[in-house]
Amino acid sequence: MRIVRFSIDGNVAFGAVEGGPPPASGGGTPTAAGEGTPPGSDGLVVDIMKGVPFGDFELSGTKIPLDKVRLLPPVLPNKVVAIGRNYAAHAAELGNEVPDAPWAFFKPSTSVIGPGDPIVYPSFSQEVHHEAELAVVISRLCRDVPRDRVKDVILGFTCANDVTARDTQRAEKQWARAKGFDSSCPLGPWIETSLDLDAAGDLAITATVNGELRQAGRTRQMLNSIEDLIVNITEAMTLLPGDVLLTGTPAGVGPLLPGDEVAVTIEGIGTLTNKVISRG
Amino acid sequence: MRIVRFSIDGNVAFGAVEGGPPPASGGGTPTAAGEGTPPGSDGLVVDIMKGVPFGDFELSGTKIPLDKVRLLPPVLPNKVVAIGRNYAAHAAELGNEVPDAPWAFFKPSTSVIGPGDPIVYPSFSQEVHHEAELAVVISRLCRDVPRDRVKDVILGFTCANDVTARDTQRAEKQWARAKGFDSSCPLGPWIETSLDLDAAGDLAITATVNGELRQAGRTRQMLNSIEDLIVNITEAMTLLPGDVLLTGTPAGVGPLLPGDEVAVTIEGIGTLTNKVISRG
Repeated sequence: MRIVRFSIDGNVAFGAVEGGPPPASGGGTPTAAGEGTPPGSDGLVVDIMKGVPFGDFELSGTKIPLDKVRLLPPVLPNKVVAIGRNYAAHAAELGNEVPDAPWAFFKPSTSVIGPGDPIVYPSFSQEVHHEAELAVVISRLCRDVPRDRVKDVILGFTCANDVTARDTQRAEKQWARAKGFDSSCPLGPWIETSLDLDAAGDLAITATVNGELRQAGRTRQMLNSIEDLIVNITEAMTLLPGDVLLTGTPAGVGPLLPGDEVAVTIEGIGTLTNKVISRG
Repeated sequence: MRIVRFSIDGNVAFGAVEGGPPPASGGGTPTAAGEGTPPGSDGLVVDIMKGVPFGDFELSGTKIPLDKVRLLPPVLPNKVVAIGRNYAAHAAELGNEVPDAPWAFFKPSTSVIGPGDPIVYPSFSQEVHHEAELAVVISRLCRDVPRDRVKDVILGFTCANDVTARDTQRAEKQWARAKGFDSSCPLGPWIETSLDLDAAGDLAITATVNGELRQAGRTRQMLNSIEDLIVNITEAMTLLPGDVLLTGTPAGVGPLLPGDEVAVTIEGIGTLTNKVISRG
């Protein structure tokens, strides 16, 4: 199931996207099937959900064309836990060592935006980078999750862009401003619930800027697997329903400028597209 | 006004503490007046608030003895933004340079506990430290706050303990686990709203462990003032009502062990006391 959060006529609801081409389409990325078919056209519809995906819910059967709704971030996390340097080739491209243990940091709820929302260039940076990442959406309150129960705390997966003010990141060492500014955490377009951990552990992930391929990797290149990360994080802290884990970015990060359109595509999930704008 | 959040008979409310000795009393700290007088005795009462302190509210006039209620964290922040190395003497004691710019990091909402709640020693650390800090409670949604408007976004001040797994902090470079584990952010006992920025900028701040003085400083030793920090942070991100800013710790940080009682006292505010326990 592809779970979206959307608004229509001022109302906000969850829903399930049905019909149309496979979810990896759209965004014009090199690996996409059905290239040139943006989500929302081609008969995709949203079946409105009664309830929320973190508890009991059912689909109402009332369906709206996807291109008639405004997609929102598919989840409003209390916290986003992200991991630095989880792909060796990305650490190397920035001249960094591979860490001995995962480096976890937070992106705040105020940084989250949805598909199609603008990434607003922060005033203090001249070097904003894209970082395409697989995002894991947590389904339930959990702490000290054993490895064999990790699958039970995952609602599904979505695409993320861990947008980073690279110059600020270098200057400030702790990354709250560099990676936590408003609009620095695009999530979407939906939560794909049909992938199991084995499948999620080997997906193609790409970023394009204005249609040009910039990042390309596979999730099996992660130094710490999804299971490793959830065990590691929940050893320290409680995760809440809707919290999000960003799992690191493959090689190929690079600059974004106002006017650019950046698209993160993950095989089996879909494409998250955002424009970069100057502050008005 | 001293604003508390409390529970009684399963109900949660805000209230204003009235009567009794000056707010710096209690906790047995060297600087405290009325030593040996814990908050809650000596005729302190809570006047129950109608509404919430971030909007319109009034005091109901219904008063309960403070020692009949359970104090909760005085605020439930969406995010806690904290600052590393904001006192030169503390940077020096850990062998660190003073940074050129504030180093901002986040503590998650799940790390917040109230006065009297236990600090639970995390399984992955053998070196948990106390860090006494002045906490600023934000009153309203704000972004890009100009220096002369900083006073308008502050509800008041409380005591914080930026509890830190020092060994984990050294190992992991980004501090989500080291400073974000459950119970690593004691806040309280209440929000003091009567201090202006000038007053808050020169307060005595201490930490004691089992009654022995460990940290002692004054908030005027901050490298970046409260105004500096709020300008710097809101240049990047939106702060929400109830968000909390921790302003750094003075020299004297040191270890906590299960069984210890740690008390943070700030002049003009009060004392925040927490016991350290092992995980059960």
